[in-house]
Amino acid sequence: MSKSIPHRIYLSEDDIPKAWYNLRADMKEKHDPMLNPGTGKPITEEELYPVFCKALAHQELDQETRFIEIPEEVRNFYKIYRPSPLCRAYNLEKALGTPAKIYYKFEGNNTSGSHKLNSAVAQAYYAKAEGLTGLATETGAGQWGTAMAEACSYFGLDLTVYMVKVSYNQKPFRKAIMETFGATVYSSPSDTTNSGRAILASDPNTNGSLGIAISEAVEVAVTNEGKRYVLGSVLNQVLLHQSGIGLESVKAMEMIDEYPDIVIGCSGGGSNLGGLVAPFAADKILGKANPRIIAVEPVSCPSFTRGKYAYDFCDTAKTTPLAKMYTLGCGFQPSANHAGGLRYHAMSPILSKLYHDGYMEAVAVEQTSVFEAATLFAKHETILPAPESAHAIRTTIDEALKCKETGEEKTILFGLTGTGYFDMVAYAQYLDGSMTDYVPTDDDLKPGFDSLPQIG
Amino acid sequence: MSKSIPHRIYLSEDDIPKAWYNLRADMKEKHDPMLNPGTGKPITEEELYPVFCKALAHQELDQETRFIEIPEEVRNFYKIYRPSPLCRAYNLEKALGTPAKIYYKFEGNNTSGSHKLNSAVAQAYYAKAEGLTGLATETGAGQWGTAMAEACSYFGLDLTVYMVKVSYNQKPFRKAIMETFGATVYSSPSDTTNSGRAILASDPNTNGSLGIAISEAVEVAVTNEGKRYVLGSVLNQVLLHQSGIGLESVKAMEMIDEYPDIVIGCSGGGSNLGGLVAPFAADKILGKANPRIIAVEPVSCPSFTRGKYAYDFCDTAKTTPLAKMYTLGCGFQPSANHAGGLRYHAMSPILSKLYHDGYMEAVAVEQTSVFEAATLFAKHETILPAPESAHAIRTTIDEALKCKETGEEKTILFGLTGTGYFDMVAYAQYLDGSMTDYVPTDDDLKPGFDSLPQIG
Repeated sequence: MSKSIPHRIYLSEDDIPKAWYNLRADMKEKHDPMLNPGTGKPITEEELYPVFCKALAHQELDQETRFIEIPEEVRNFYKIYRPSPLCRAYNLEKALGTPAKIYYKFEGNNTSGSHKLNSAVAQAYYAKAEGLTGLATETGAGQWGTAMAEACSYFGLDLTVYMVKVSYNQKPFRKAIMETFGATVYSSPSDTTNSGRAILASDPNTNGSLGIAISEAVEVAVTNEGKRYVLGSVLNQVLLHQSGIGLESVKAMEMIDEYPDIVIGCSGGGSNLGGLVAPFAADKILGKANPRIIAVEPVSCPSFTRGKYAYDFCDTAKTTPLAKMYTLGCGFQPSANHAGGLRYHAMSPILSKLYHDGYMEAVAVEQTSVFEAATLFAKHETILPAPESAHAIRTTIDEALKCKETGEEKTILFGLTGTGYFDMVAYAQYLDGSMTDYVPTDDDLKPGFDSLPQIG
Repeated sequence: MSKSIPHRIYLSEDDIPKAWYNLRADMKEKHDPMLNPGTGKPITEEELYPVFCKALAHQELDQETRFIEIPEEVRNFYKIYRPSPLCRAYNLEKALGTPAKIYYKFEGNNTSGSHKLNSAVAQAYYAKAEGLTGLATETGAGQWGTAMAEACSYFGLDLTVYMVKVSYNQKPFRKAIMETFGATVYSSPSDTTNSGRAILASDPNTNGSLGIAISEAVEVAVTNEGKRYVLGSVLNQVLLHQSGIGLESVKAMEMIDEYPDIVIGCSGGGSNLGGLVAPFAADKILGKANPRIIAVEPVSCPSFTRGKYAYDFCDTAKTTPLAKMYTLGCGFQPSANHAGGLRYHAMSPILSKLYHDGYMEAVAVEQTSVFEAATLFAKHETILPAPESAHAIRTTIDEALKCKETGEEKTILFGLTGTGYFDMVAYAQYLDGSMTDYVPTDDDLKPGFDSLPQIG
């Protein structure tokens, strides 16, 4: 064990980035523009104003500004829980017997339990600064909703959360924590919106989906003058706000004279992965370094590995702008046996473009193997990971074991996005053997692909 | 807001203490000795061997050694999650409008969710080092059981946990997390021990209690050669292992030129409070400084504020040695409406002596006011506190509001022992107004006092 590198590398408060990094400014080819589904033309900032507050609409479309200053009020909030630690997984390395050096950027040390708070703080701040009264959003596993509830409580905004029905029923404690922070939480689909009522009418027993919940939240925003919609992933603005994860990782690794050979992150909509890899992807694009970048997704929701690179809606009711993404189709419904998040039908346009252009790899992993990795990690590193984060752990372990075979001392960095305290039902299913894997057949994926709009 | 003091003060890995601090060595009057209930004489180290492993039996009775070296294997484990941060509650101060400076030592950033891991690691290490195969323990709220499960998993020991029935039923996720770390968990009283069967026979509908669960775990230890008993609070050895909390707090406060006017901790059995206050109590005893030290307990389990200072058993079945403690009597049964931990009938002998000798104050607070404080804290500091920790928050807020009235800029340090992720049932009860307070009458306390042994 190297004595010179501590188990936990903490930066100082002054090391919290002063600006977010906008990877798009350094991409040689920009991702295809978001389209107005009515006109088929690139959407304008003004067309986004009914959905997003102005500052965020601007950030969503800004492909040019390399660094965007973080408002002081946002940095003040960040100081409560950031910088997050970069951790050396000495004990996991020892348990695996690998010569690889494993680092993880741990984003779970805040009450929301995940990295989601990084963007929630920013989105709530801009809404408050523009004089809005409230926000509406969706949540799946509950981490994003909790983060938004915290941020809205802090800045004094109302929050309405549409929680995917299957999670709402499985995770009553997630609901309680959001309510502790003052949020109003509905099971989605709900009878509080037209889109929710329509889906309930056609399928009363639906489990719900992120796509449906997004439709409901967007509807609340566009039909209430003082409210706007916020989303915890996929969007360019979210990846921007999450870039602090990557920037802090670079700074911490510089302190210990390290640079990763492999960067690994779980990918649902891409918020964590996009934030973690931003500076490393830039190094690849700019020819400064050539780390492998690996996205890890569930086999049951395989946007990268089995999706199509196509224009699609971000929601099920087809009310949002169109984005060019790796997608399973906005009509895709994830299997009910799927634990945790990473259920979204599509992938961040920025990450989709990076993947399409060969800057990034993707692998899909089965959930029982994910929980096996999670349990091993917990026993040796004493942090119980969120199931989402455990996807990255699975692939990290796989890569570390390859190093064991080859003898290579690779440096691996992965994103430990959050903790699994609210996922004990899934852990219990893994422990008692009742957890199953689900690999969709091509026929299973067909309805989703059939739902793709005929555009682009 | 002072610019010079960050929100989070992190020490380096090298600042993890090399030795625990044994406050007993500096107490002018030692606490009364533990007695063998059979002989009425002070118990010997050897008499403790059937219950505790040898090193811990020695630590339990060692009143002389001021600093006890922390084994390297224990420090290596500590490095995964320590030093814990000292946090400045700028946002809470602002919300209260107080001139007081509020600091908290946050022990919740590990999967066990609390400070309990500090002693669990030590106890598991010594057991493994002496060649034992397993340990048995009790858990109430589940934090101690989780901590022991983590520690035993790490060192490769079997663990049997007797979980107080009411918690076992209310907190299935706590059970799942202990099982994730490989522990065997029984609802207590259980049919696996003589003491459990006896209590079930006399009261089949009992809610269980820590005292009963201790009886069962001790029975497993003394009837299995390769097993010993471990306890998460009350014991002198536990306070010793928790002294790192106080030592790190002193070091972090020195870095920012601070010293507390008031030190506040919640008190159930005293593990956190004893660890946090050890160096500050020493300063008082040695005349170096004179901070107020305040223990905060629930009105429903008022060991300090309404208990008797008397010899008592540590368990309900009266199988343990006798200790001189502030106690409600080993037959005391906490009210079922009481949320979270801090349910133990008695208080650490060391803290009892400090309180008796006037080095410490104690206050009792009602649980609805505790959850009010918890919710306020969460909204402003973004950490959802454990109900136990929130007792300290309640009194911290009360003291800070007194400063607001008087204009005094007092420096307050409190122990934030853990997070409340597994306590959402109680939070939900607080939110929906169904949480009630319970102030026992003198008649309610009588059965407990009647159960006190006629000794000393």
